[in-house]
Amino acid sequence: MTDTVSQPTISTDAAHRLIAAAEAKAAEIGVPMCIAVCDAGGNLKVFSRMDGAPLLSTQVAQDKAYTAAGFGMPTDGWHDFIKDDAPLAAGAVAGIQRLIIFGGGYPIKVDESVVGGIGVSGGHYTQDQEVAKAGLAALG
Amino acid sequence: MTDTVSQPTISTDAAHRLIAAAEAKAAEIGVPMCIAVCDAGGNLKVFSRMDGAPLLSTQVAQDKAYTAAGFGMPTDGWHDFIKDDAPLAAGAVAGIQRLIIFGGGYPIKVDESVVGGIGVSGGHYTQDQEVAKAGLAALG
Amino acid sequence: MTDTVSQPTISTDAAHRLIAAAEAKAAEIGVPMCIAVCDAGGNLKVFSRMDGAPLLSTQVAQDKAYTAAGFGMPTDGWHDFIKDDAPLAAGAVAGIQRLIIFGGGYPIKVDESVVGGIGVSGGHYTQDQEVAKAGLAALG
Amino acid sequence: MTDTVSQPTISTDAAHRLIAAAEAKAAEIGVPMCIAVCDAGGNLKVFSRMDGAPLLSTQVAQDKAYTAAGFGMPTDGWHDFIKDDAPLAAGAVAGIQRLIIFGGGYPIKVDESVVGGIGVSGGHYTQDQEVAKAGLAALG
Repeated sequence: MTDTVSQPTISTDAAHRLIAAAEAKAAEIGVPMCIAVCDAGGNLKVFSRMDGAPLLSTQVAQDKAYTAAGFGMPTDGWHDFIKDDAPLAAGAVAGIQRLIIFGGGYPIKVDESVVGGIGVSGGHYTQDQEVAKAGLAALG
Repeated sequence: MTDTVSQPTISTDAAHRLIAAAEAKAAEIGVPMCIAVCDAGGNLKVFSRMDGAPLLSTQVAQDKAYTAAGFGMPTDGWHDFIKDDAPLAAGAVAGIQRLIIFGGGYPIKVDESVVGGIGVSGGHYTQDQEVAKAGLAALG
Repeated sequence: MTDTVSQPTISTDAAHRLIAAAEAKAAEIGVPMCIAVCDAGGNLKVFSRMDGAPLLSTQVAQDKAYTAAGFGMPTDGWHDFIKDDAPLAAGAVAGIQRLIIFGGGYPIKVDESVVGGIGVSGGHYTQDQEVAKAGLAALG
Repeated sequence: MTDTVSQPTISTDAAHRLIAAAEAKAAEIGVPMCIAVCDAGGNLKVFSRMDGAPLLSTQVAQDKAYTAAGFGMPTDGWHDFIKDDAPLAAGAVAGIQRLIIFGGGYPIKVDESVVGGIGVSGGHYTQDQEVAKAGLAALG
């Protein structure tokens, strides 16, 4: 057995590019956002709170990025996953720390590996999703 | 009245065996898991996060073990227990710290005594339960 | 600029081997220990609390592993580093969360990369260091 | 009396410029850093963890920015301020949440107003200070 596993993780440079692209989209739709990028270990890499973005979004954006990196799936997938499963519907959000189950968080994938997560908060989650996707498009 | 009560509690050696058996089952079904064993005092004994297991499961596995040891019943029993009891349905999950009400946590019992708890997280809770049971089978 | 950086991180299998080797040394010197291994992202991989180890060591072992992985140097290097630097001597321990400045934590290095950390607590820190080094010797 | 006071606060655009300038200096001296900028309300505006920066610096950089904005003085001023005042020397660091008393945090001032704070962590605090000052030089 080997001693290590290879874990590619997003670079700071790429994280800045994702955030700049997300900010541009948020400016375009006129909704100031908080945008967070974490690495494959769930640790914050780069964060930006745009002028006028809600204070509470500071934490939500970071937790969306963490949730997405931590499970490797978009945060908007969680509601469908749990809504018809009574124990999870009642117990997942309160029981799993930092879990966000509405849209705006996406895993960042490179060559099928989850290398981090992006989380956006500030508008309705459908707007958050649009801005996060614009960020992801800056990858590669 | 006597001054003390005897409290049997799981040994580190047994905890390692439970975790190894659980890891083997998780590998067999192809879902990397976090597995935690706590003692009768609810304190962590042995923990393992398998390569590729979700980061958020680190906390959930430990809380499932804690919940199971702390009440002496499987975590999957909680939802049925509280769902038709309005005060508990509304208040148990938010009000009881570390309470997990979906499957994957079991008390570890020896001769009718609760000597600890095992908690598994990483897949759907039905998979977590299967892996936890495989761990328990390594006991004795 | 590239989108990712390569981050090798310790495997669960290697983490189990380190802990087994550390446990063997702790048994040999007759001092039960808590032993934690975290990965390159500072997240817990494998943990063991030996029968009879102090409860408070549960957290200390994890924080030693985290400190060592987080700075890439042994925890015993911190006291010398800060003792003659008045602002750090007065402010480092309280100001830096999870910082442990006494012995028992070492970075786990493979090919010059920090791939994780090991932390041991339970005896005097000189004993903790001896046990942690025995764990590291199981690498490779 | 008027009902409101005017509170100038750093813009996201300026925060990005400070962080880019600080990153350039950190790259020049070869020490990867965490850099945080908070606004006049002490809330995080922009953050960057450079590739290879210590994990523990994530929190320290943010707390340095917060300390500096919160008192309107550089973090390196605190040790001299408290060291010969017994109650503060014994009680300030442990009693004041998020207080950092070593260098690397500076208030961001515009026209004599504190409009935010910058905090840098990753090297010795003298290096952190150098990098933070390079960030501040990008203002205006």
